[in-house]
Amino acid sequence: MLDKLNWRYATKKMDPAKSVPEDKVAKIIEAVRLAPTSSGVQPFELFVIRNKELRAKLQPHAWNQAQLTDGSHLLVFAAWDNYTAERIDAVVTQMAEERGGTSELLTTYYENLKKAYLPRDPQVNFEHAARQAYIALGFAMIAAAELEVDCTPMEGFDPAKFDEILGLSDKGLKSVAILPLGYRAEEGDWLLPLKKVRKAKEALVTEID
Amino acid sequence: MLDKLNWRYATKKMDPAKSVPEDKVAKIIEAVRLAPTSSGVQPFELFVIRNKELRAKLQPHAWNQAQLTDGSHLLVFAAWDNYTAERIDAVVTQMAEERGGTSELLTTYYENLKKAYLPRDPQVNFEHAARQAYIALGFAMIAAAELEVDCTPMEGFDPAKFDEILGLSDKGLKSVAILPLGYRAEEGDWLLPLKKVRKAKEALVTEID
Repeated sequence: MLDKLNWRYATKKMDPAKSVPEDKVAKIIEAVRLAPTSSGVQPFELFVIRNKELRAKLQPHAWNQAQLTDGSHLLVFAAWDNYTAERIDAVVTQMAEERGGTSELLTTYYENLKKAYLPRDPQVNFEHAARQAYIALGFAMIAAAELEVDCTPMEGFDPAKFDEILGLSDKGLKSVAILPLGYRAEEGDWLLPLKKVRKAKEALVTEID
Repeated sequence: MLDKLNWRYATKKMDPAKSVPEDKVAKIIEAVRLAPTSSGVQPFELFVIRNKELRAKLQPHAWNQAQLTDGSHLLVFAAWDNYTAERIDAVVTQMAEERGGTSELLTTYYENLKKAYLPRDPQVNFEHAARQAYIALGFAMIAAAELEVDCTPMEGFDPAKFDEILGLSDKGLKSVAILPLGYRAEEGDWLLPLKKVRKAKEALVTEID
């Protein structure tokens, strides 16, 4: 896996002539679906945009970055704007259904979760949900790398405009990160020839034996 | 990779007799180091705690969860409490060194980044840094799964106590997530026999063709 993590990079120039095959996109989506989240709540949704007109409409609100239309798919990660009783109850209902019934443990756990989450400021809950979405963003990036699909994680976009165009506010969602999928162009990517820079292990990691 | 993502789960009972080999721990750390972050800043640090006494000291501040000591390693992800000019300048310095000199593009980019980040409320910057740490948390979990190492992502701990015991505040860090590494016990894990529950693709994903 580490060789694939060294291979991947935030692709700056994608080849508009190449499309990511749908079987690979399906695997990337499945990695997102399988990503673990706090208390199993999965407090986000994923939008997979193939429609090029829609991607072109979003593009000016993402600094006109070319990958939005040179790539073949645009993933938009949208976190819940808040936790609600309804949203958490739906998680419990599904767990009870799939695991064969409600247990005391299950009910108590999520009742306590609601007591903790629901009185909190919506912004605190949104930030918590956004962190969970970022775990899934990480999963999507590794899945893409394993499949030798390029991608470009982006925060450089106007979430309010994206939310408006995609109708996210009505669904209680806020876009937090976007990820175009595609294939690196053979020429014209300024970042591709540059060395991948990461902090030395000694600067990032403290080991306590 | 998907089979490994289905294999993994938030291990509730680890076998205290088994230790994760150091070559596998090194690979998990390397995945964290290679995780992409916004503008390449890597605004977090990773603590790898082998010392069992220290893990036992932290345990009561994590709801006495057994994995802290039944596992062999405890990873603590600690995000920067704020962005500072010094921290961002260090990133630029390293990039210039490793990529052979400062460029106009490099300097302008990070000067603009400082103009955006430094006036912001520290809490906003901390939340942004925490999200980046969660990408790396996701990378660590996938790396562990690929190596058939078990782990348990946890937010159920007292960050203030962890910060105090690990001396994180003095370093401008705040713990955001912890991840014990170890091996599932053959018996006694209530979660292991239960079906993995995830939202159906239709509930999580909207495709726009």
